[in-house]
Amino acid sequence: MFGYQCIATDGKARLGRLQTPHGKVETPVFMPVGTAGSVKGVTPDQLIAAGAGMILGNTYHLMLRPGAETVARLGGLHRVMAWEAPLLTDSGGYQVFSLAHMRKLSAEGVTFQSHIDGSAVELTPAKAVYVQRLLGADVIMQLDECPPGQADHDAVAAAVERSARWARLCRDAWREPLTGAFQALPCHSTQGKYQALFGIQQGGVHADLRAASAAALVELDLPGYAVGGVSVGEGHEALCDVLDAIDDQLPRNRPRYLMGVGEPRDIIAAVIRGIDMFDCVLPTRNARNAQAFTWQGRLRLRNARHAEDAAPVDEMCGCYTCRNYSRGTLRHLFMAKEMLGPTLVTIHNLHFFSTFMTAIRKAIAAGTLKASANAWLAAIYEGGDEEGEKESEVL
Amino acid sequence: MFGYQCIATDGKARLGRLQTPHGKVETPVFMPVGTAGSVKGVTPDQLIAAGAGMILGNTYHLMLRPGAETVARLGGLHRVMAWEAPLLTDSGGYQVFSLAHMRKLSAEGVTFQSHIDGSAVELTPAKAVYVQRLLGADVIMQLDECPPGQADHDAVAAAVERSARWARLCRDAWREPLTGAFQALPCHSTQGKYQALFGIQQGGVHADLRAASAAALVELDLPGYAVGGVSVGEGHEALCDVLDAIDDQLPRNRPRYLMGVGEPRDIIAAVIRGIDMFDCVLPTRNARNAQAFTWQGRLRLRNARHAEDAAPVDEMCGCYTCRNYSRGTLRHLFMAKEMLGPTLVTIHNLHFFSTFMTAIRKAIAAGTLKASANAWLAAIYEGGDEEGEKESEVL
Repeated sequence: MFGYQCIATDGKARLGRLQTPHGKVETPVFMPVGTAGSVKGVTPDQLIAAGAGMILGNTYHLMLRPGAETVARLGGLHRVMAWEAPLLTDSGGYQVFSLAHMRKLSAEGVTFQSHIDGSAVELTPAKAVYVQRLLGADVIMQLDECPPGQADHDAVAAAVERSARWARLCRDAWREPLTGAFQALPCHSTQGKYQALFGIQQGGVHADLRAASAAALVELDLPGYAVGGVSVGEGHEALCDVLDAIDDQLPRNRPRYLMGVGEPRDIIAAVIRGIDMFDCVLPTRNARNAQAFTWQGRLRLRNARHAEDAAPVDEMCGCYTCRNYSRGTLRHLFMAKEMLGPTLVTIHNLHFFSTFMTAIRKAIAAGTLKASANAWLAAIYEGGDEEGEKESEVL
Repeated sequence: MFGYQCIATDGKARLGRLQTPHGKVETPVFMPVGTAGSVKGVTPDQLIAAGAGMILGNTYHLMLRPGAETVARLGGLHRVMAWEAPLLTDSGGYQVFSLAHMRKLSAEGVTFQSHIDGSAVELTPAKAVYVQRLLGADVIMQLDECPPGQADHDAVAAAVERSARWARLCRDAWREPLTGAFQALPCHSTQGKYQALFGIQQGGVHADLRAASAAALVELDLPGYAVGGVSVGEGHEALCDVLDAIDDQLPRNRPRYLMGVGEPRDIIAAVIRGIDMFDCVLPTRNARNAQAFTWQGRLRLRNARHAEDAAPVDEMCGCYTCRNYSRGTLRHLFMAKEMLGPTLVTIHNLHFFSTFMTAIRKAIAAGTLKASANAWLAAIYEGGDEEGEKESEVL
C-alpha cells in the first residue's frame, strides 16, 4: 500500500513515484500546507485544479483543535478535509518547539502549553504516533527535537541523540496494532501496513551529527526519511552543504523529504542533491499577503501600478485566476479586504508551484535539470515588483 | 436586448423570464449581493454551481473603491467580477442614506462623506446613471431618496416627490448617448438599448404616497420597476400591505423588484403579491456568521452540539459543501477561524436560496404556490438551533 519507485535519475536528482493508500504522486512533489484542516481559503476542487497532488496537515494544530479523537470520529483527516488524494501529517514536534510555550523537555517527551487556551499538553513519541494514526494520513512523521538555528554543537548532538531514541519509540508504536475505540478506522488496522512512518534526520549544519543521525534512522528501516532542522536561519549555502551528503546517507529506494523548504532556489538545489518531497507555507502565506509568483519575478499586487492593469498576473499561466481576473481586479480585492483576493492568489501561487515541479520532473526525465535550473531561477527571481529585495528574501 | 415575459400566473404570482444582454434568468429570482466586486468568499464558478443566475453589485462601494472609471478601464464590472451572467447595480442612494456621513441633500442630488477616506463625494441622478453606465451592469437603478423607517408622512412625501424628479433626470441621462473616453465600452453605446433602467417606488407605509410614487414612475415608461424603502423596520404585515397594491400600481408587462428583501417568509409573501426579483445579504452575511439555512430550521454551526456530527448541514442538499463536509468540520473551521468556513457555508446558503426560488417557480407553474407556502415556512422556521428566536429574526 506504500512504496517508492525511482523511475529515472539525472545526476543525483530522481524522478519517482510514491504509492500511497490514496493514490500515486509523481516526485519530486511540492505539498501545500493545510495547517488546521484546510489549505487556507481554497477547496479541494480548487487545489486539484491548481495541480496539487499531495498535501500536509499539522498535527500540532489539529491535536489542540478540534482534537485527534474528534477528527477520528468525523472519519479521519482525509474526510474532514474532503481530500481524497495523498496526505501527510507532521508529528507536531516542530510547532511545539516554535509556537508553544515550552514547559519541560525530557527523555520521554515534551510537555507544553497550548497556544490556544494555555492548557498543558504532553507529546511523547508514542502519543505523536497515536494522534497521527487517529488523523489517518498516508504518511506520518516521527516526533523529533528541532533545535534552534543558533544552537551549538553539543545542543545539536543532544537533539540528534534524543530524536534517534524517539524515532525508535515511534517505530515501535507504529508497529503495534491500534487498540480501543479507534481500531476499526480504515487507515490504522494492521501494523503500519497503511500508514508509512518517516524518520527525521537532525544535526543542524554539522556534518558529523547529520551522518550520525542518518545512520541511526536507517538502522530502523523506515518507509521514508526526512531532512529536518533546516530553514532555521542557516542560509542557502549551509543547506546545500547538508544536502550534499544525503544521497550517500539515506537509502536510494526510499523517498526523501526536505521539511519546510519552499523557496524555488532551495527546491532546485535540493532536487539536484536527491530530495523527492517538499512542503512550505510560502505559496499560500505569501498569496494571502498579495504576493504572486510568476516566471517574470514576484508581484506585490497591492502595488499602485497594478490598479488599472487589465492583464492577468501571468499571461502564460492557465490557472483559474489568470484565466478570469486581471491584476487590477486582484489589487482592488486586496485593497477592499475581500476574502476572494487571498483565495484567488493562493490558487495562482499553488498552480505556479505545481507547474514549477512539473518542469523539474520533465527536466529530470530529459536529463537537463542542471542546464535548465539557472534560466528558471533567473526568470523567477528577476523582474517583478521586488528588484533589489531579492537577497534578503531568498536566504 | 432587455425584456420581460410573463409565462404563467398563480393568482398575482408570476412565473417569468428576464432577457438581458448577458442571458436569460427565470423569475422570481433571488440575486446574491456582490458588494465590492465579489460575492464575498466565492468564485463565479462556485456561484454558478450554487445556482445563482443573476447577482447585484453596489454602486456606492464601487464608485468609492476602485472607482467607476477604473472599473471601466478594467473592462466593466462583469469582467472585473469574472461574471458572465446577468448583473444589476443599485444607484448608491441607499448606502448614501444608510452608510455615509451625509453632508447635504438638495433638489439636485446629495453630497456625502466617503466612509472609506472621508472625502466629499457628490451623487446626482445624472452621475448615478453615468457611474452605472461605466460599471456596465445589465440592469441599473435610478437614484432615489430612501427615508428612514420612522419618517413622518410629510418627510416621506418629500422623498417621494424628490425620487420622482430624480427618476425623470435619470431617465433623461440614460437616454443620452454616452460621450467621452468611455463611449466605446460595449454596454453603453446607444441610448439605453443595452442597459435597462429601473425606477424605484418610495412612499413608506403610506398607501397614498405609494400610489403617487408608482404613478409618477409609470409615466416614464421604464423597462422595470422596484419597490424601495422597505426593510427599514416596518415589519412583515406593513410590507404585505404595501405589496398588496403593487399589482395594480405597476404594469404587468414589466419586471418588479423588491429591494433588499431576503427573509424566505417575506419572499413568499412578495411573490404571492406579484414581485419578480429580490436581493439581500442574508444568505451570505449569515453564512459568514456560521448560520446555515436548511429545510429543518437554521443551524448555528459554532454550536458545540455539532462538534462531532459527521452528518452534512442538510442530508437532502446537493451543494458542494453538503456533498463534501460534515457539520463537525464546518464547526471546526469556524472555531479555528479558517477562511474556508465562511466560503463553504456561503455556498450552501446560496444553494438553499436557489433551491427555494426554484420550488417557488415550480409551484407557480403548477398553480400550487399558496398551498405549498405554509408547509415550506414551517420547515424553514421550525427546528434547527434557533427555536424561540424566530420572531425577532423574521420581522
